[in-house]
This record gives sequence, structure tokens and C-alpha cells, in this order.
Amino acid sequence: MAIKCTQIELAARPIGDPKHSDFRVVTVDLPPVGNGEILCRIIYQSLDPYMRGRMDDAKSYAVPVAIGDVMGAGTVAEVMESKNARFKEGDIVTGMFGWRTHIISDGAGVRKIDPAVAPISTAIGILGMPGMTAYVGLLDIGEPKAGDTLVVSAASGAVGAVVGQIGKLKGCKVVGVAGSQEKCDYVVNELGFDQCLSHLSDDLESELAKVCEDGVDVYFENVGGKVFEAVLPLVNSFARIPVCGLISRYSHVGDFPGPNLLPKLTRSILTNRLKLQGFIITERWDRFPEFEKDMSSWIKSGEIVYKEDFVDGLENAPEAFMGLLKGKNFGKLIVRTSEDPTI
Amino acid sequence: MAIKCTQIELAARPIGDPKHSDFRVVTVDLPPVGNGEILCRIIYQSLDPYMRGRMDDAKSYAVPVAIGDVMGAGTVAEVMESKNARFKEGDIVTGMFGWRTHIISDGAGVRKIDPAVAPISTAIGILGMPGMTAYVGLLDIGEPKAGDTLVVSAASGAVGAVVGQIGKLKGCKVVGVAGSQEKCDYVVNELGFDQCLSHLSDDLESELAKVCEDGVDVYFENVGGKVFEAVLPLVNSFARIPVCGLISRYSHVGDFPGPNLLPKLTRSILTNRLKLQGFIITERWDRFPEFEKDMSSWIKSGEIVYKEDFVDGLENAPEAFMGLLKGKNFGKLIVRTSEDPTI
Repeated sequence: MAIKCTQIELAARPIGDPKHSDFRVVTVDLPPVGNGEILCRIIYQSLDPYMRGRMDDAKSYAVPVAIGDVMGAGTVAEVMESKNARFKEGDIVTGMFGWRTHIISDGAGVRKIDPAVAPISTAIGILGMPGMTAYVGLLDIGEPKAGDTLVVSAASGAVGAVVGQIGKLKGCKVVGVAGSQEKCDYVVNELGFDQCLSHLSDDLESELAKVCEDGVDVYFENVGGKVFEAVLPLVNSFARIPVCGLISRYSHVGDFPGPNLLPKLTRSILTNRLKLQGFIITERWDRFPEFEKDMSSWIKSGEIVYKEDFVDGLENAPEAFMGLLKGKNFGKLIVRTSEDPTI
Repeated sequence: MAIKCTQIELAARPIGDPKHSDFRVVTVDLPPVGNGEILCRIIYQSLDPYMRGRMDDAKSYAVPVAIGDVMGAGTVAEVMESKNARFKEGDIVTGMFGWRTHIISDGAGVRKIDPAVAPISTAIGILGMPGMTAYVGLLDIGEPKAGDTLVVSAASGAVGAVVGQIGKLKGCKVVGVAGSQEKCDYVVNELGFDQCLSHLSDDLESELAKVCEDGVDVYFENVGGKVFEAVLPLVNSFARIPVCGLISRYSHVGDFPGPNLLPKLTRSILTNRLKLQGFIITERWDRFPEFEKDMSSWIKSGEIVYKEDFVDGLENAPEAFMGLLKGKNFGKLIVRTSEDPTI
């Protein structure tokens, strides 16, 4: 009897904020497993802000999801059947399997994970793409030095939380910006940032100036918009700005109202010798072994902690994703698609 | 009898474009030459766009010129009297002596130049700060590769002209943007750029798109404003943008009208993994020996050519400087303060 797979396809390109009708839930029969293939059951599926960009048909670093295609996502899965010598039934693997319950894969880009190292959900979180994004973006582009002031936007998010904790390990003063008092408390009390401000404040710019009394040496950009604009007047000479994400802008349609702040930025780049650099983590997998070694050790020692925000059931992925873009999640957002056999 | 020195002081901070009343011409008596000192007669004085920034009392990389201080400038001078063992009468030297006819210096930061290598005026041009700005900005930040498309603004200027020629030596397709048909013709016919467009065109954006049919890999930013905005939609993945100058913006007062293009830029930085980086050449003197070696050899072989635009008499420096900010010069702008004894 064929395995049924439920999957979520892109039904329409969102205009502005995504809505339910932009997604379509479909159930299909999977074919039999062929030679060299594996059948996997998805256990955990990642939801990440970058997915919003893939829904647009705009020039970007990745080919957009086609209308009718299954939405892409990193996942953790269990091998149910294998005709591929690299895998056996019961293996826990991670791969870009997408928003679906099951998949037949040829094993390309699929990696086995060891449940003894850490909870398997971390393979799409702190030990996976978001953790590595934080690690590479901060260390390779942000180049933090002891005594630097590091500002991190989306500070309680899957990337920001790690950026700030690595910053503390490197001896920085770390200031977070997050979306609620509860998140700010978590960022300071649990993650150990020195300060955390709410971006909902009416006066973020002067609050940030007060907290960053020695200016800003590294700004890790996850959000765009008013946080970036509040940081800009505070940057020190030779400040580094890794541009990792712009969650506040992804769903924006049309022009942004003036004044035009572009000349202010370019002037600051010149007079302060700033470096702004964008990066995409999938182009930096050469850094994975070192990242995995460091991060595993930091997790083991308790120097870096993490928080996961689980949503049960694939059918709830669209709603959870819409909430993610509004900052409704608290910690790394993960869809629990099916039972985790390791716990 | 005391040596008389005529000098030009900052009389007032300009609001917007500088005007004659912002400068004051003063004649002073110089004291006798003390032990360890040299008396110099200025022969050539550089006029450069960056000087506009020094006239403002704004946070920048350099301390502003104080009201009543002599305007700063790179110069070429002849030693008239020396009580410093490093120099002797008749030596030709270069130093930051400022807008004046004579100076007494302790020799710090003063370097002897060899008139046999090239005309001595080149020490403040192609073989000095502007040439080195082009060299370091393009090679170290722009990282040009053969086959890249390089766009250079202020293409006939002291820096831009050199950037484009080095780009050609490195195998790039080079597109200049300049301020008149005469300048564009010079840039293509004399400097060997592949194309040159006028920024006075009503439709720079589409003209540039047509000429840069493979996109833009390096944009060497000298001007800001509409040239930058025309390049932005054309940047390729991993494009590099050295931010060297923003001549179109230096005299701007107040906000810039919308739409706000900052979010468009940050989005492009992210999706195209751009690198934008500002730099100040005075912080990169470690590169001088290699620059001097390469550039001397390129000049000798004729691979790099240069054009100088001389203005006679220190009293004409303010007028010439105002013209520089409007693009009225054609080639490296130099004040001929007194007779060149080497020609």
C-alpha cells in the first residue's frame, strides 16, 4: 500500500503579509522506494524568516518556490526504508525535505545525525543552519574583539540568541533588541546579554544611545528598519555590520516614505570606514566542521543555551510561519510533524 | 628680514556650497628657522574633494579645520633653508603643508622626492594620495577579477581616472561616469575605458543598464547620489563597493527627500551578498611601497596616463576649490603656488 504524504504547497505569491490562501495542503501517494533511495518520515521541520523571500518571484540568491511547489525547509527525519547503502532503517537524518510529512530521497545532501550528541531537533537549530548563521556571520564578518560593543537585533530569535552568546564568549558588551519585555528579560537573564531593549519603544534611538555609551562596533542585522536606523548614528570607526536578515522588510510592498536615509548611510560608511556585508550561510559550508566542534562543546559546557518553540502538526505550519514574521514565536520555531523516537 | 607667508584660513564654516567669504587670505611674517627645522617654499598644492568635509564641524575621520586655521593640503615644496640633517637647501619634498606659500616645518611627515622619476607635481597626484587612493581602494576593497564589470564614478577625476586604468590592466570591462561629453571622450579615448556615460543624462539608469549588460561586479564610489542609485539595481552577486568619496553630497544641508532608499540598499546587500566598505587612504600607508613601485612602472611604460589641471597663484585656490566641488576641473586639480625649479 502506498505511503500517503501530506505536503504544503505555495498556492499563490503573497502580496505583503502571507495569508492562509497563499498555501495549499495536499495529500499525495508516494511511489515505491527505488534503488539508491530512502523513504523518510519527517519529525521536525524548521520555519525560518528567509522562507518569505522564496515566496516572491524577485531576483534573489535562491530560485523562488514555483507556484504549486512544496515549500522548502530544513528537516529532521527518520529513515523508514532504505535502498541506499549509506542509510539504514531507523537512522535519524537531516536534509532539506520541505513542508511535508514524508519524502523519498536519493540521499543527496542528506546527513546522518547522532542522537547521543544533543536532542535531534537541534540539527535544524543551534547545531544547524541558524546556529551556523550566527557563528559565521558574527565571527567571519563581524570580527568581534574583546571590549567591543555588539548590538544584536531579533535578539531572542534562533540566530540572534546565538550571536549574542558568542559575543559574550568573545568578551564583547552585548546589547540585544527584541520585541517584548518577556523576550528582553529572557535575553538578559537566561542568555546573559548585558542589556536588551524593546523595539516597540517610542524612543529606541535615545535608549540605545544611552546603553551604548561607547558607541557600536558590531551590529548584527537581522531585521532592518528602525533598529538599523537607531544604530546608524552610534557606529564607531571601523564598525562591522553583517547583514543576515531583514525580517521587518520582507513583506513590504512599494516604496518606503522619505526622508531618504541612503545618503546618510553612505556618508557614515565613508567617514566611519564601515564594512557592511551580506552573506548566505549555504555558501559557507566549508565552515561547518569548525562550527560543529565549537558549538557542540559550548552546548555541552552550558556556555551556550537555546530555546525551542514547538508547533504541533504540519497543518499548523502556515499559521506559525505567519506568526514568525510578526515575532510571535519565542525561541527557534519548529514544527513537530511526527513523534520523536529518541525521546 | 623675515620671510612673508601668504596663507588661506578658514574664516567661517560653509553652509552648503563654500563661498569666498568662508576663506580669508592673510600674510604673516615667519620666525627664523630653528634647530631641526626647515623653511620651505610651496611649489604645488593639491585641491581635493575631501577638504570640504574638513570644513564642517561634524563627526568624521579627521579633526575639522578650526575657524582661523590654515586650510590643510598636500603640497610639493622646495627647501630654502635647512637646520635639519635630513634635508638640504634645494631638496624637493612633499608634506601636508596646507594652503600657504611658505612654511617652517620640523620635518615630521615630510618626504624627499626624486625629480628624475616623474614631474614633481605627481607627488600630490598620480604618485601621491589620489593615485594611492585609487590603487588601494580598487585592489584591496574592490578586488577586481578579469572579466568583471567595473563602474567608476567621477571617472575623469584624479582618483577615478586611475581606478579605471588599473581596472583595465586587471582585465575588467570598465565603464566610467563623468560630467560632460568632453570628459567622457577623454576617458574613453585617452584613458582607455570601454565606455563612459554622462551623469547629466536624464536617463542614466537605463543607459547604464544597457552598457552593463552583464551587471556590475565592482562599483568604485566617488560621488554618491544618482550614480549610486543607478548602479544599485545592476549589482551582481558578491559585488564589491569601495566607498571612497561622496562629492555630490558634501555640501548638502538637511534631509534628503523620499522615497527612502535605505531598505532597498540593505535588501540588495543581503540578497546579493554585497560588500560595501569605506576607507581612508591615510590609514593605509603600509601599502605605499608597493603602490609606488607598481605605479612608477605603469607610468614609465605608458600603461597609465594622467592629466593635471593647474591653477596659478594661491589667491585663486578658493575659487578653484569651489569649482572642483562642481566638477569644473578636468584632471587632477593643482594650485601652482610658485615656480617649479625642475622644469
